[in-house]
Amino acid sequence: MQNSSIPFLETAQHLAEAAAPLLRHYFRTPIVVEEKSDLTPVTLADRAVEQAMRHIIQQTHPDHGILGEEMGIQQIEADYLWVLDPIDGTKSFITGKPLFGTLIALLYQGQPILGLLEQPILRERWLGGLGIPTTFNQQRIQVRSCTHLSAATLYTTSPHMFNPDEFQKFETVRKQIKLPLYGCDCYAYGLLAMGLVDLVIEAGLAPYDYCALVPIVEQAGGIMTDWQGRPLGLHSQGQVIAAGDRHLHQQVLELLA
Amino acid sequence: MQNSSIPFLETAQHLAEAAAPLLRHYFRTPIVVEEKSDLTPVTLADRAVEQAMRHIIQQTHPDHGILGEEMGIQQIEADYLWVLDPIDGTKSFITGKPLFGTLIALLYQGQPILGLLEQPILRERWLGGLGIPTTFNQQRIQVRSCTHLSAATLYTTSPHMFNPDEFQKFETVRKQIKLPLYGCDCYAYGLLAMGLVDLVIEAGLAPYDYCALVPIVEQAGGIMTDWQGRPLGLHSQGQVIAAGDRHLHQQVLELLA
Repeated sequence: MQNSSIPFLETAQHLAEAAAPLLRHYFRTPIVVEEKSDLTPVTLADRAVEQAMRHIIQQTHPDHGILGEEMGIQQIEADYLWVLDPIDGTKSFITGKPLFGTLIALLYQGQPILGLLEQPILRERWLGGLGIPTTFNQQRIQVRSCTHLSAATLYTTSPHMFNPDEFQKFETVRKQIKLPLYGCDCYAYGLLAMGLVDLVIEAGLAPYDYCALVPIVEQAGGIMTDWQGRPLGLHSQGQVIAAGDRHLHQQVLELLA
Repeated sequence: MQNSSIPFLETAQHLAEAAAPLLRHYFRTPIVVEEKSDLTPVTLADRAVEQAMRHIIQQTHPDHGILGEEMGIQQIEADYLWVLDPIDGTKSFITGKPLFGTLIALLYQGQPILGLLEQPILRERWLGGLGIPTTFNQQRIQVRSCTHLSAATLYTTSPHMFNPDEFQKFETVRKQIKLPLYGCDCYAYGLLAMGLVDLVIEAGLAPYDYCALVPIVEQAGGIMTDWQGRPLGLHSQGQVIAAGDRHLHQQVLELLA
């Protein structure tokens, strides 16, 4: 098992530095929004950013695999796989809401070992990995303690992201939460890692939506699993819980079971 | 009827400039969150900002009235009434999400004639009023055209802001919308005025939540009314529609009736 992601830190930062100026360039400019086969939106900006990041990986680590939201997979069999979401929160991006992010993950044999979340408009970067305690703009951050749902703050991107069965389970949790809030994609996990939010519960996610967030949350002292409590990896089913406190995580697991 | 808000522009900007550094100071710092009688949160930051703004108004326009979210009303009978929300989106503020705003409105005989929305972390300012076309950071902005719900983007802070009857009506509209999104308080109206969003539908709002937004939306070419299509003022009931396009506004009114 790979126990350090430090050798790949520089590449991850290089990818973020390639993505950020492109996103600042396209943000709030008139841009054609296409619909993908799953009816989610995609823009020229998504594709330009993914292309720039893929180019860097191909130059730096030609033996590594790449899975990107927009341009598919190459060398899936490689031990090291970069999992990229050029714009997590394209709906935020196209409506001018600066809470989208570029997500960059490195997986070793299917498990996330390094994660980076870049918010280019606010010029914010979260970074964490095996051997790398989570930082926010280079400052060490940590989750906060919160042992009861009745005291917890929960973020979810949208109540419409669940299927009917998932929604029923989600509502069981949500009704016990002190402060249920909506609408910030990957950014919510960053706030959780900073100790400003206690829970994020989502579903229907793809590996490029969550892989980068796992090391960020866990190296800040939190826990991030699927709805059955299993570690998240390349082959998870898209149901995600992130919690700052293990007690809270346990309570949520019991309610979602 | 007062037909220009220009004489009061300088005061509004002065208020925003007093609020912004205080909010930057308190943002993401450990801060005690109290619960008000309506169970909404309030912090030292809300009170400090309102106090600073009230002090300026009392010095500059001692004959004007003031209605603030945290410290109540004074001189309600005055022709000119400043309506202040030191932090619209306190839940965003306390979770570290930089989409809250300071809202500053000037009303003349109960009708909003000047509005300012300040987002201090992003250093963004929306400003509009009678005789003052809406600007974003001093650049003229305008709403966009969108004539059908099936092509529209809608923002709403939370699906839990509606009472059961309102929620049923809201859902009738929401299900016809192309892109229904959640979670940004006053910021959504700013995005609408910039032509990035087509609709905002909310309920349960107080005058300090919407008065500043009316001139911003309308002087950018949009329309903002209650759910019956009436102009919004001090005595409206808290049900709000903002639309960039009058055709869309009309369709929403028919569905909410």
